[in-house]
Amino acid sequence: MSKQVFNYGAGPAMLPVPVMEQVRAEFLDYQGSGMSIIEMNHRKPYFMEIIAETKALFRELLELPENYQVLFSHGGGAMQFSSVPLNLMGGHPERKALYANTGFFSQMAIEEARRFGKVEVIVSSEETGFDHIPHLDPAMVNGGANGGENGGENGGENGGENGGANGGANGGGAAYLHITTNNTMMGTRWQEFPHPLSVPLVGDFTSEILSRKVDATQFGVLYAGFQKNLGPPGQSVILIRDDLLEQALPEIARQLSYGVLAETGSMPSTPNVFNIWMNKLVLEWTRDQGGVEAMEALSEKKAARIYGVIDASDFYTGHARPGSRSTQNFTFGLPGADLLTAFFAEAEAEELHGMAPPLMRQDVRASLYNAMPYEGAETLASFMEEFERRHG
Amino acid sequence: MSKQVFNYGAGPAMLPVPVMEQVRAEFLDYQGSGMSIIEMNHRKPYFMEIIAETKALFRELLELPENYQVLFSHGGGAMQFSSVPLNLMGGHPERKALYANTGFFSQMAIEEARRFGKVEVIVSSEETGFDHIPHLDPAMVNGGANGGENGGENGGENGGENGGANGGANGGGAAYLHITTNNTMMGTRWQEFPHPLSVPLVGDFTSEILSRKVDATQFGVLYAGFQKNLGPPGQSVILIRDDLLEQALPEIARQLSYGVLAETGSMPSTPNVFNIWMNKLVLEWTRDQGGVEAMEALSEKKAARIYGVIDASDFYTGHARPGSRSTQNFTFGLPGADLLTAFFAEAEAEELHGMAPPLMRQDVRASLYNAMPYEGAETLASFMEEFERRHG
Repeated sequence: MSKQVFNYGAGPAMLPVPVMEQVRAEFLDYQGSGMSIIEMNHRKPYFMEIIAETKALFRELLELPENYQVLFSHGGGAMQFSSVPLNLMGGHPERKALYANTGFFSQMAIEEARRFGKVEVIVSSEETGFDHIPHLDPAMVNGGANGGENGGENGGENGGENGGANGGANGGGAAYLHITTNNTMMGTRWQEFPHPLSVPLVGDFTSEILSRKVDATQFGVLYAGFQKNLGPPGQSVILIRDDLLEQALPEIARQLSYGVLAETGSMPSTPNVFNIWMNKLVLEWTRDQGGVEAMEALSEKKAARIYGVIDASDFYTGHARPGSRSTQNFTFGLPGADLLTAFFAEAEAEELHGMAPPLMRQDVRASLYNAMPYEGAETLASFMEEFERRHG
Repeated sequence: MSKQVFNYGAGPAMLPVPVMEQVRAEFLDYQGSGMSIIEMNHRKPYFMEIIAETKALFRELLELPENYQVLFSHGGGAMQFSSVPLNLMGGHPERKALYANTGFFSQMAIEEARRFGKVEVIVSSEETGFDHIPHLDPAMVNGGANGGENGGENGGENGGENGGANGGANGGGAAYLHITTNNTMMGTRWQEFPHPLSVPLVGDFTSEILSRKVDATQFGVLYAGFQKNLGPPGQSVILIRDDLLEQALPEIARQLSYGVLAETGSMPSTPNVFNIWMNKLVLEWTRDQGGVEAMEALSEKKAARIYGVIDASDFYTGHARPGSRSTQNFTFGLPGADLLTAFFAEAEAEELHGMAPPLMRQDVRASLYNAMPYEGAETLASFMEEFERRHG
């Protein structure tokens, strides 16, 4: 390519350049075998080593304890919207699960879970356009909470958000509580997680995995589609505590069962060898960059530069409230539809790609995942400043 | 590579060399976009054109009529073992389906379908080690058959195979009849299909799609995992008649629903862009070779060379009976376990790879799919002849 192209798309996203180059170099002949990895039996040592190393890298990077399994499933995060209730709702006699509604993908997860059991949405920020993460007091899940305790950091408005949940969740527990830890469309993320809880916490980490330190042991299940910080689309990883492997509903498809995936080493049939190979290379790259700690520092530096422009401007309006901001997805509005159109057109012309507006909203969403170097944040921030100078 | 390597593995299998080279060439920069296809939003014109062209190529190569849809699903053939009953059993009030048991993957499909409804196995060749395709008289499905009619081409033994099925299938119909058109492990295939039927015929074409002319209109659903004649593992294609899109069971995961896949253009969420891109290139290559007709002629020429060695030999014992032979998978035994071990060792040493014995059997299974040139059949046949000369 003659010019540096930056892709701020929400996903499929940029992958690290050295990884892409290595895949190209080894694509026709994997380690002197004379075959491509995608043409080989997956039970040969070549691929068995890849999948073992990939699992070990997840363990290392996320500091997973021994009682967690690393599983791979066909399909991305949206397949897990079905897999989570199908695998876990058996843990409650009434197939009851709790969900936090913090945006588009949360809503998809909730809608899908409702098809299999009883879903209670215990907090939601829908009324304010999902511009923040509502406060979720563990007592709302564990019992003993009352209306007064739910005020929390966000003050009065949470009374309304949380009111309906009191009582319901407290009676008889639930199979799990599901949260979307980072909301791709909204540019928000949970800064901390509800803890400790009396039910397993399930986190959809699709759009932020490996971008910040997380205490995995606060979760029963962490899952992520590959297409942002892990590799090409079409595959997901599930990190699950052993004791949750046997709570599946009887109607689950065998290929989606966490128990079956654990028993078969994620190979109840042929796995997606290409995606897992690329995932291994992305994880190695992540480790070589300094691991999650380095990715977190880089993410914060990129975020500071972009939020700096938004906060210094009367032209751009940040969508996510400061206390709920993502470091991966940046959402902001402009004064008027014409300026929005001009923003996208000028950005594309300067090779800043992928900032189409999120579904259902009329503003900008730029995504800067791990593979995006700081230069990408600098380029975007400078473009925003220049655009404001010309049009502000 | 310094030496030509042939991979006779059952799948993931060899892909056409020009396709592999094109993928490598375009991997970092798809059509001058400056991005890889796996890093791009799947709703951009680049990928939307790929998926549209891929569907059109399936239509063209398989001569699919307008009332059939081309769908893509995450997961391979084994995911469809769940998807088929989940999508179609709603077509019968008792969730009843008919299956033919012709080998390992048929059994997996049957076992999985039993988890969702009532399965009746109307023919089976299990008693003779799945060495042939049992006769399936359409009257067994449509009603009006009696014991005497089931004798068919295979004579007396089919009385026993088919006896149990009479009556059951005839009463009240069924949602569908499922057959595995080519049995990878056993080296057998249906030479012709039961027709006409009063219930939709569903065919698992995973290990033979595009290798012979098939009248698709004899089927309600044709499906195939990618990893043999279509592309890299982890994806499948479903060719389905419109009227079968709305027979799903309520407990189906959204991502697996044929109706949802049809409504969303196979993109209820991000599809596997890499696999579909490669599939498009494989289909273009297939068309450029002369289409299914040319692939069938090549397959028959390869098969004739290999079965020629088996038939001329007292050393090799073909597993599949002549009337049931596959042109994709070749199964044969040797006189004794030591010779079998020697066969695999010498083959590997001469760069004839992937002929490990099928699960549960002590013989050789060599697979020669579309991407395997005639030279691969000649090399294998010559090796077999030479091996027999040395050890016979």
